[in-house]
This record gives sequence, C-alpha cells and structure tokens, in this order.
Amino acid sequence: MRMNPLLREVRHNRLLWLLVFVPAVFAGKSVRPEAETLLFVLSVLAIVPLAALLSHATESVAAKTGDAAGGLLNATLGNLTELVIAVAALRAGEHMLVKASIAGAIVTNTLFMLGASFLLGGLKHHVQEFNRANARLQAGLLFLATVALLIPSAVGEADSGPAAAFAQEVSVGLSVLLIAAYGLGLLFSLKTHRDLFGSAEHAEGDEAPWPLGLALGTLAGVTVLVALVSEVFVESVQGASLELGMTPAFVGFIVVALVGAAAEMAAAFSGARKNRLDLSVGIALGSAVQIALFVAPVLVLLSYVIGPAPMSLQFWPGAVVMVLVATITASQATNAGRSAWFVGVLVLMVYGVFAMTLYLLPPRAQ
Amino acid sequence: MRMNPLLREVRHNRLLWLLVFVPAVFAGKSVRPEAETLLFVLSVLAIVPLAALLSHATESVAAKTGDAAGGLLNATLGNLTELVIAVAALRAGEHMLVKASIAGAIVTNTLFMLGASFLLGGLKHHVQEFNRANARLQAGLLFLATVALLIPSAVGEADSGPAAAFAQEVSVGLSVLLIAAYGLGLLFSLKTHRDLFGSAEHAEGDEAPWPLGLALGTLAGVTVLVALVSEVFVESVQGASLELGMTPAFVGFIVVALVGAAAEMAAAFSGARKNRLDLSVGIALGSAVQIALFVAPVLVLLSYVIGPAPMSLQFWPGAVVMVLVATITASQATNAGRSAWFVGVLVLMVYGVFAMTLYLLPPRAQ
Amino acid sequence: MRMNPLLREVRHNRLLWLLVFVPAVFAGKSVRPEAETLLFVLSVLAIVPLAALLSHATESVAAKTGDAAGGLLNATLGNLTELVIAVAALRAGEHMLVKASIAGAIVTNTLFMLGASFLLGGLKHHVQEFNRANARLQAGLLFLATVALLIPSAVGEADSGPAAAFAQEVSVGLSVLLIAAYGLGLLFSLKTHRDLFGSAEHAEGDEAPWPLGLALGTLAGVTVLVALVSEVFVESVQGASLELGMTPAFVGFIVVALVGAAAEMAAAFSGARKNRLDLSVGIALGSAVQIALFVAPVLVLLSYVIGPAPMSLQFWPGAVVMVLVATITASQATNAGRSAWFVGVLVLMVYGVFAMTLYLLPPRAQ
Repeated sequence: MRMNPLLREVRHNRLLWLLVFVPAVFAGKSVRPEAETLLFVLSVLAIVPLAALLSHATESVAAKTGDAAGGLLNATLGNLTELVIAVAALRAGEHMLVKASIAGAIVTNTLFMLGASFLLGGLKHHVQEFNRANARLQAGLLFLATVALLIPSAVGEADSGPAAAFAQEVSVGLSVLLIAAYGLGLLFSLKTHRDLFGSAEHAEGDEAPWPLGLALGTLAGVTVLVALVSEVFVESVQGASLELGMTPAFVGFIVVALVGAAAEMAAAFSGARKNRLDLSVGIALGSAVQIALFVAPVLVLLSYVIGPAPMSLQFWPGAVVMVLVATITASQATNAGRSAWFVGVLVLMVYGVFAMTLYLLPPRAQ
Repeated sequence: MRMNPLLREVRHNRLLWLLVFVPAVFAGKSVRPEAETLLFVLSVLAIVPLAALLSHATESVAAKTGDAAGGLLNATLGNLTELVIAVAALRAGEHMLVKASIAGAIVTNTLFMLGASFLLGGLKHHVQEFNRANARLQAGLLFLATVALLIPSAVGEADSGPAAAFAQEVSVGLSVLLIAAYGLGLLFSLKTHRDLFGSAEHAEGDEAPWPLGLALGTLAGVTVLVALVSEVFVESVQGASLELGMTPAFVGFIVVALVGAAAEMAAAFSGARKNRLDLSVGIALGSAVQIALFVAPVLVLLSYVIGPAPMSLQFWPGAVVMVLVATITASQATNAGRSAWFVGVLVLMVYGVFAMTLYLLPPRAQ
Repeated sequence: MRMNPLLREVRHNRLLWLLVFVPAVFAGKSVRPEAETLLFVLSVLAIVPLAALLSHATESVAAKTGDAAGGLLNATLGNLTELVIAVAALRAGEHMLVKASIAGAIVTNTLFMLGASFLLGGLKHHVQEFNRANARLQAGLLFLATVALLIPSAVGEADSGPAAAFAQEVSVGLSVLLIAAYGLGLLFSLKTHRDLFGSAEHAEGDEAPWPLGLALGTLAGVTVLVALVSEVFVESVQGASLELGMTPAFVGFIVVALVGAAAEMAAAFSGARKNRLDLSVGIALGSAVQIALFVAPVLVLLSYVIGPAPMSLQFWPGAVVMVLVATITASQATNAGRSAWFVGVLVLMVYGVFAMTLYLLPPRAQ
C-alpha cells in the first residue's frame, strides 16, 4: 500500500515512463563504457523523469511542513537536479561545463520557459494578466546576480597573476552577498510582505501531495540516482557533443538546460494553458533566480571543499552578455503585467538568436 | 486630366519643387563626372522629393487595396527609398556604406524623428498622450533586432578564418529569423490583436490618395529615378565627404539617414503639431523597425544574388552600441505613454551626442 | 546676537561638533607635514561638518531669493563641496582623482543614498509612495550623462595620437551639451512644467533658514575653509590609501564620495524615516544629476583655465560600466513610484558589489 501514490503517479504521468532509461544507463555503462554518444543520450533521457520525481517529492515535503518552512524548502531544493549534476561536474574539475550549465539554465528559464508559457497561453487566451509584484521582485534579484557577474570582469579587466587571485577572492565575497540577498528576498516575499505576492504562492499546487515518508524516501533515493546518472552524463558529454557535431557550448547551454528543467516546464506550460500565468511566471523566473543566487554561489563555496580546484564566479564574456540580455528581456516582457501571444514570440526569438549563434559557433572561438 | 493630382501635389507641396534637381543630377553627371562634391549635393537634393513621391504613391496604393493588404504593402514598401539606395551601394560592393546607412537610419528615426516630434508637439501642447501598446510592440521588435546584431559579435568575438565563415552563416540564419519576427508582428498588429492598436493605424492618412493607375505608375517610374540618382550618389559620396571635411561615418550615419527619411519626417512632425502623437510615434518607430527587421535582412539575403560578395549582419562595435542606446532611449521615452517638450530635448540630446562624436571622429579610428 | 542661529545650529546638530577637526588639520599640517594618514583622516573628518554648513547656507540664501532664483542657486551650489575638492585636485593635476570622485559621487548618490533611504524608510513604513515624475526626469538626465560618457569611448575606441586630440575636442563639445541639458531641465521642472513636480520642490525645507547676511557670510567663509582643507586632503590621499591598505580606486570612489555627501545623506535619511520619500529621492538623484551634468562638465571647461593640462570627459571603462549600472538600477528602482524595504536592500547590494570589487582590486589592474 505504501508505494501506491508513487505507482499511481508513474502510471498517470507519461514523463515518468522514461524511468526505464535509468537502469539502461547503468547497463550501458558496464557493457559498452566507450560508447559515449549512446551513454549521453541514455543519461539525458534518464535525468528527465528523475527530475520530475525530485520536483514532486520536494513539493510534497514542502506541503506538509507549513508555509514558511515549505517555501524555504522549495526555495533551496527546487533545483536539486541542476545542483546534483553540477556537483558531479565540479568533482570532475569540469568548471567550464558547470558554468555553461549555470548560465544556460538562467537563460533557458528566463527566455524559453517564460516565452513558451506566454505563447502557449496566448494562443488560447486573447490577453492574459498576472501579478507584477512577483515578476518585479524576481527581475530585480536576477539583475543583481547579473551585476555580480558583470562588474568584476568589467572593472578588473586585467591579466595574469594578481587578476586570478582577485577573481577568486571577489567570487567568494560575491557568493556570500548573493546568498544573503536570496535569503532576504525569501524573508520579504514569504514573511514581511507576503500580502503583495497574492496568487503566485504555491508553484505546482495542482497535484496531490504524497505522504511525508514516501516523499522523504523518494527525495533521498532519487537524489542518489541522479548523482549516479550525472556522473555518466558528465563523463560522456564532451565526446558525445563532438560526435553529434554540436559545439560543447551549445550542449552545455541549451541541451543540458532543457533537460534539467523539463519537469518545471511541464508545470509552467500547463499553468499558462489554464490562464494561471502567475504560476508560469513564478516558476520560470523563480527557477532562474534560484540558480543565479543560490545554486551558483553554493557551487563556488562548495568548490573549496569538494573540487580539485576552487571555482570562480567569472564567466566568459559571451555568457555574461547573454545572461544580461535575458534578464533585460524578462524584465521588459513582464513589467506590464499582461501578455499576448506575440510577447511570447519575441522572447522565444531572443532565445533563438542565442541558440543559433551557439550552434554555429566555431569550436575554437569559445 | 490624368496627371492632375500629381501636378496639384507638386504645386501644393514645396518639398517637391526640389524635383528640379533630378535632371540636374544627370546633366551634371554627363558634363562634369569628376565634380564629386557637386554631384553629391545635387543627388542628395534630388532624392528628397523623389522619396516624398514614393511615400505618397505607396500610401495611395495601400489605401485602395484595403486594410490588411494595404498594411502589408506599407510595411514592405514604406522604406523603398532606403532600400533602393542600399541596393545601389550593395551592387558597388560598398558594404561599409550599406551598413552605416542601415544603422544610421535606425538611429535617426528612433532619436531624431521621435525626439523632434516630441519637442515640436510639446512646444504647442502642455502634455501629450499616445497609445502605449504600439510603442511597446515597436520597441520590442527593435530590441530583438539589436540583440541579433549584438550577440554574434559578443559571443564569437574571435578572429580570422572560422570566424568569417561563422559570421556569414549566422547572418543568414538571423536574417530569416528577423524577417519571420517582422511578419508575425504584422500578423499580430494588423490581424489577431488589432483592437489594441487603436488610433495608430493609418500613417499619413491626411493627404487625399491618388487614383490607382497614377499611384502605380508613379511607384514604378520614381523607383527607377531613385535607382539612377542613387548610383550617382554612391559613386560620389566618398570623394565628397573628404572634400567637405566630414568623416564617411558621419555622412553615412547622419546625412544619408536624414535625406532618406525627409518625407516621413514631414508627416511625423505635422502629426505632432496637430496633437496626434500616435501618428508620429508610429511613423518614427515603425520606420526604424522596418529597416532593422525587413530592409537590413533582405539586403543580407539579396547580397548573395546581386552583390560582388555576400554581406554579413555584423556591424562595427560602435554602431551596435549606438543602435542599442537608441533602442533603450526610445523604449524609455515612450513607455509612459505621455510626453512633454523636455522628453523631446533629452532624446534629441542623445542624438546630438552621437552626431558630435561621429563628426569629430578621426577618420582612421572608424 | 548676529551669530545666534549659527551657534544654535552648532549646538543642535551633532555633525557640526566635528568642526573641531578643522583647526586640527591646519595644526597637523604645520607640525607633522609628513604624517599623510593622520592628515587624510583629519581632513576627512573636517570636511563633513563644513559640507553640512555649506549646504545649510545655500538653502538659506535660496529660501530668501524666491523660487526660481532659489532653485537655480540650489542647483548650482548644492554640490559646492564636491566642486571645491575637485578644483583642488584639478589644480594639482590629479585627473584620476577628480574622475574617480566624480564617478564615485554619481554612484554613491544613486545607489547608497537612494538604497539606504528606501531601506530606512521601509523598515518603518510597510509600503511608501513617491512622485514618479521627478524620479523619471532625474533618471532621464542621468541616462543622457551616461551616454555622453559611453559613446566617445565605444565609437572611437582607437589609439594614440589622433584619439587623444579627439577625446579632448569631443569632451568640450559634450560638456557644453550636458550643461545645456541641465539648464533646460531646470527650466522644465522649475518653470514650464512645475505643476508635475508637486511635492518634491524644496529639498531640506525642515530647518529654519538663516538671515541672508549670515548665510552669505557662511557661504563665503566656509568655501574658503573647504578649499584649504581640500588641499591637505588631495596631497595626503595617495600616501594614506597605500598605508591604510586600500586601493586608490576604492578611496576615490567610495570614501571621498561618502564624505562629500554626508550632509545630504543626513537630510535624505531623515526624510525617508518621516515617510517623505519625495524628498529623499529628490536629494539622491538630484545630487547625482548635478554632479554628472553640471559639476563634471564645468570641471572639464575649468581645466583649460586653472589646470596644468586640460582634462577630458573620458573615464576608464570600469567607471563607465559602474555609472551605467547605477543609472539603470536607479531608474528601475524608482519607476514604480512605490518602494518597500527590500527595494532598498537590492539597491544597496548593487553598491556592495561595486565596493567589494574595488576594495579587492589589485592596485596595478586599475
């Protein structure tokens, strides 16, 4: 009886049928460890349903623990998949992959998830309205994170020896500052000014929550599975991207980001179709904020403990520009508090410009 | 009798008295082909009234063919003058001139035409209001075009061999994307959501439309004349700018743009004085959008057919920054939906900063 | 009897107790001229109360001379302290210090003063509202100034010989343009459209004005004192920053700016606590505008008369980026016309990113 809700979920939600690829990854890894493209595809397919399970388990725990603690839990574990993948890459010393997937997740959430929500909602409803207060808060936090990425490289544009030490010191300081800003933002929206954030409060509130024991067990078990699959993924991504004729930048920025966010996208798009754009905007911008102000700085601090070398918060200039443009786009697209299908098209087209550029980029220019 | 409306127009509209310079250009060309400054000045003076005629003929055809087809016609032929001049430069392989005149037209329309409309209207009316929906749509499209100019150079900042091929490939892809966005924008504003774009629908609706035969004849005949004059213009511009002590950047960016848009400016300014700012904002931003999302990408694609070498969509960094600043300025200046004279002054001052910088720029630094 | 209001002010306002450091500076200078750190600290402590006196004297003269003349006086002498310090640095040929203190004053006023006002006001009041018209005007003027700093270096990015002459020419032209824009902005807000700027009109209107004779006398006498103390300050700043382990960029940008604006900050913060955010926003953005569009261009023009070499308006790229980010932040933070404590936190955090980066910057990278 105890597994009932989980089994019902699996039968109900077609995304979860992809769980069959989880054993397939481990089988493939032991039988043909050199088939990198195969392992890459299998691990991508396996991560999607695991991410959906993690997301639902987190929601269920949050629902049981009351509003403030639940909000905090959602806010810290909501992007657990991305965090676990990134930790695997960090342990392998693949800083470029970590950074590409961080920047890619920010850009994909703010542009693809938001734009597609506007488009899908707009195709069904003439004009849709949503709560501006939440969109403004998230856009403000994203802007702060962008400034933190931009300023150190713009101000200390220099070189060699002292610059590297400077990048490291400033990254630790800014990581602490970003986490503090994120925490104060939660205090603001969940506690002191929750009256302003009316309808956007529970994210994927549609589905029935699981019992606490099942939820905690799933959370623990699935996190381990994601960690194991991520290791295969990180090992295979470089070889696979070469074989598939895609640049590593494209894979890290676009493919990984779309995979990691698949579960949230399903929820955001369904909200948009049901004319609950508050939900969609909240998930899209909220996820981006969480990655920029919580996951990324936590990874920088973690890199001192678990990585072969400390990771800085300095991104390559093209990534900073894309994050900046994505932030401005999201801020402009949401600041009227209303949308129609063409707003979605515009936002998606900005994403299209990024994707096309990264896809065509000659490998050496990255 | 058939020429009556055309003759009446010429007598009524003093701008058209400049038509006398059309034969003067051809006379000058055959008598003194080496007098570049003279030919430059004559061709500039000849293009102004031809552009006014083209503009009126397009309007008249549009008025006869009904709303949707008419809107489309206006949207494709509205900047025919700029297109014909640019095609002449493209055939001569003068990519720098083409790009300078594209960027210059965007900047001049968004800053000079918009700013002067606000100023002229504001000197007569204390506070003026206009439809924000249209301004927001146009600003959004302009922003997309700016992103398309910015991202390839920011992301693929590199060099030499592979970078040049990359620039070419990405330019073709982005051109198709921009034309698609432009088309969807027309679908949105003319068809699915035309209710939002209330009063801004007909652009130069003041003047009486011509009969269809006259309009089509004028369209065909004047286009040929503009093409012939443009050839003289393109040949003489380089020599003339040196002799006049102006940098080529200043001539391409400021002089050519002001000349090409003279007819639209007359309409925009007259709208502003009559407190019909919807009209002025629509013409100014609409023209800029048309050049950025239709004329420029069409020229890139055309360059594969008619040019000596394919042209990319990559602009020199200073031009990208100016287009970006102009887009942000226009977006900020219009997003309140109301204006007073000082808003016009601010917008014109931004243009003044550009003009002053380009005028003083040492030739080798471009 | 005549000195009564001044003495009452000194007894009442604890900031003025710091006046004791004024004689201490001169004593220190003659006894131990080589103790740079001591002289630096003493002169900083002496400038704070002198700035407060200057500010109150200017207000008092303005209050006596009627609205238009008073507004103009406040607008030109409101940042007299910053101007006098900068003139001292200009005479010593310390262009880097002048520029750092200009950029620092803009950034500190728009971010620290504004953010702390929002935070302090927000901790006492749930949501605060203020007049958007004034905030929009000031943000527009700041944006123009930023464009004037940005465009010459973005467009004429070149090199050596002709570039230096170009920078000088364009700086003079842009200085005249900025002063004109500032003047027209005063005409707009004090004269033609003063109806739009309702409650923000008198800045520090709380305190009782002094009699005209006392005010004029204080203005003259204190200006001389500030000039003398500034000379000591400028001579000692370089040595002191080395000894204190702070980079010159940090000292110029952050320390000097906080010192120069101490008096205005006291007024802005007290306004915010009293729920008069119009006052706070007006002082913070108004001061930044005054420095960017009046003090800075006046210094460029003055440098031809009093300096050993003419000073340009070209700032080092990091400073331009910071001024740009500060302008965008202020514009976004004020454009809703309402604020809560977290808006203040976000604005202060942006300032924190700047301060942290400048503090950690290795000296040679500036």
